Amino acid sequence: MTYGNGSEKKEKRQVYLDYSATTPVKDEVLQEMIPYFTQKFGNPSSLYTVGQESKNAVSLARERLANLIGAQPREVFFTSSGTEADNWALIETAHARSSKGRHVITTKIEHHAILHTGEVLEKEGFEVTWLDVGKDGLVSPDVLRAAIRPDTILVSIMFANNEIGTIQPIAELAKIAHENEIIFHSDAVQALGNVMIDVTELDIDLMSLSAHKIYGPKGIGALYIKHGINLPAHIYGGAQEMKKRAGTENLTGIVGFGKAAELAKINLSDHVIQVTELRNYFIEQVTERIEDVFVNGSMEHRLPGNANITFKYIEGEALLLLLDMAGVAVSTGSACSSTSLAPSHVLESIGVPVEMIHGSIRFTIGDFTTKEDIDYVLEALSESVLKLRKISSVSRDSGW
Amino acid sequence: MTYGNGSEKKEKRQVYLDYSATTPVKDEVLQEMIPYFTQKFGNPSSLYTVGQESKNAVSLARERLANLIGAQPREVFFTSSGTEADNWALIETAHARSSKGRHVITTKIEHHAILHTGEVLEKEGFEVTWLDVGKDGLVSPDVLRAAIRPDTILVSIMFANNEIGTIQPIAELAKIAHENEIIFHSDAVQALGNVMIDVTELDIDLMSLSAHKIYGPKGIGALYIKHGINLPAHIYGGAQEMKKRAGTENLTGIVGFGKAAELAKINLSDHVIQVTELRNYFIEQVTERIEDVFVNGSMEHRLPGNANITFKYIEGEALLLLLDMAGVAVSTGSACSSTSLAPSHVLESIGVPVEMIHGSIRFTIGDFTTKEDIDYVLEALSESVLKLRKISSVSRDSGW
Repeated sequence: MTYGNGSEKKEKRQVYLDYSATTPVKDEVLQEMIPYFTQKFGNPSSLYTVGQESKNAVSLARERLANLIGAQPREVFFTSSGTEADNWALIETAHARSSKGRHVITTKIEHHAILHTGEVLEKEGFEVTWLDVGKDGLVSPDVLRAAIRPDTILVSIMFANNEIGTIQPIAELAKIAHENEIIFHSDAVQALGNVMIDVTELDIDLMSLSAHKIYGPKGIGALYIKHGINLPAHIYGGAQEMKKRAGTENLTGIVGFGKAAELAKINLSDHVIQVTELRNYFIEQVTERIEDVFVNGSMEHRLPGNANITFKYIEGEALLLLLDMAGVAVSTGSACSSTSLAPSHVLESIGVPVEMIHGSIRFTIGDFTTKEDIDYVLEALSESVLKLRKISSVSRDSGW
Repeated sequence: MTYGNGSEKKEKRQVYLDYSATTPVKDEVLQEMIPYFTQKFGNPSSLYTVGQESKNAVSLARERLANLIGAQPREVFFTSSGTEADNWALIETAHARSSKGRHVITTKIEHHAILHTGEVLEKEGFEVTWLDVGKDGLVSPDVLRAAIRPDTILVSIMFANNEIGTIQPIAELAKIAHENEIIFHSDAVQALGNVMIDVTELDIDLMSLSAHKIYGPKGIGALYIKHGINLPAHIYGGAQEMKKRAGTENLTGIVGFGKAAELAKINLSDHVIQVTELRNYFIEQVTERIEDVFVNGSMEHRLPGNANITFKYIEGEALLLLLDMAGVAVSTGSACSSTSLAPSHVLESIGVPVEMIHGSIRFTIGDFTTKEDIDYVLEALSESVLKLRKISSVSRDSGW
């Protein structure tokens, strides 16, 4: 198939620019997982050799993940997803500390896994303060400080935002929480593998992680629980995960997460340099080639691969579909809510007008993205935006 | 390596007889999963083509699993494990129906995922009746009927037991619950793929399932929720699984579960015949060759592959280790609690004396077990039991 108009037909490419929604599993990761499906499949809780081999594989993965975040292995607990980790952290901290107080602080730009869990806590009688963020998408330490009350038991602030990629001043926010004897949780699903994270240095108490954003498999996440914090279990049953998280271990998922974590640690600086360069080139070209566009969120405190761009006078869904026809995969918001038409709560929070929110697209670049991919997308994008604006200008002229 | 004493050295085999703990993934299942790791890795909640392909794969898997249990696809909700499904069913049913009453009925022989979740409900102020079972390991319908009270809101009875393999009279038990307007849940993790299950015919409201007991991957389970039953979500976040279970779909896990379910449906009768035959041969030979042994649980209402056998005058852990040295993998109880030394609550419930519980071994046979495997195990077993009894007879003689 070909794409492009004019005399020079270009070959159609498949370009995936939605790495924040999910990443492909790297081949090294898959190769490490494969023996554990059919050969080394023993239940890690079994006493015999084939079970003990599995147990050792789980231990190695735990070490690798701990190593990526500056934690001790005993502080890493595997879950089925970042979402489960978020649910666990919020619900069980709130329940365990409810005799001290029933006030929780989080932000308006959290992932739905935090937003909806916070709403559940509200229904249970907890009070939740939803912090505003600035136009740059950042939480101000002063805003957090002002929200703290004597009955505040938990602060949960995401490390990096899934839509606009803004990175929060986590060390400073954690410090404020701790000065007030409050547990500090961070959803670091988007930050992992993209930002240097050292939980000890940052002094984080609880942190949610996921494998499928760092070239590991879907269906496996983790919760970091600082040693000494007595967080009760959230899923009850067998004695897995040091009696903190029941259910037969997702052996292959854990092995894959471990390998992906090892690679992420090795590749971190190269990854950041390469992806940032492509992202900056992309943004620079988009703003140069296309009129009436702006980038959402701080450019300074931002995930390397994230470019969230508003194209005025168009519908993001229509742009997404035209790009898809050209072989380009992008997202209108976080993938988790992409099948809903509600305007992004994140863009709303940073003050993007509703009609412009609908014209916003999230491009997220990853390890497999090339300069040729970006050039291809730039062309498809310019053409598609032009086409859509022609339609919308007709509508606008006719008083729509 | 060789095994056996005397002049005829036999080649050492690796024989896995712990299929109730977990199964290897069948090669057809793995092959179906593989493209979804590295190529067709799109987030099923995304709108573009690569996401929609993933969504279609999830739909196909849901159909296949529904087809195995006689359900509609919209009644199948993927979870991370049978344990998560059990937690979801019990906790959310109890919470949702607490205005009607706060009494729950289950049995003393449930999996820990039910036992410990029931205990959590007790701490929350629910009252739980733990039904006794007979010496055969079966729940009597009369015992259930007698336990029902006006404030009973939920009955949860496992389909088949994970230790002794006894299959409960589910249709009859569900009928009693429904006559009293009580929700009926069953943990069918062990039954799936081993017993013909038709949720419509059996009239089950909620049923927990797991892939890794039917030659699918670990880390993926499901909860069947009968259409019309309004069970609230248990994990909050994105709109996945028809807004009932948040978290990016475990795409490869779901694809694998679907394929495993398809194979289980096709192979069900052959599997039952083959495995039952080997199991019966094994039990017959054990009782013939070894003195002072007995089989635990009903022989009539029993999973095809299960042989739970008590060897008097020995320690099961020691026998497990000798067998492991001979290359044979078996379990002393459910794998989930095998690293604990507490006597099996299931064997206790059917009246096995504590000293004999410690001499009990669960052998579970599966699709890859051959007659040669069984013969090898029989020999290793006879020899190991003899050896251990020599030691224990010395101990007993010396007044130990």
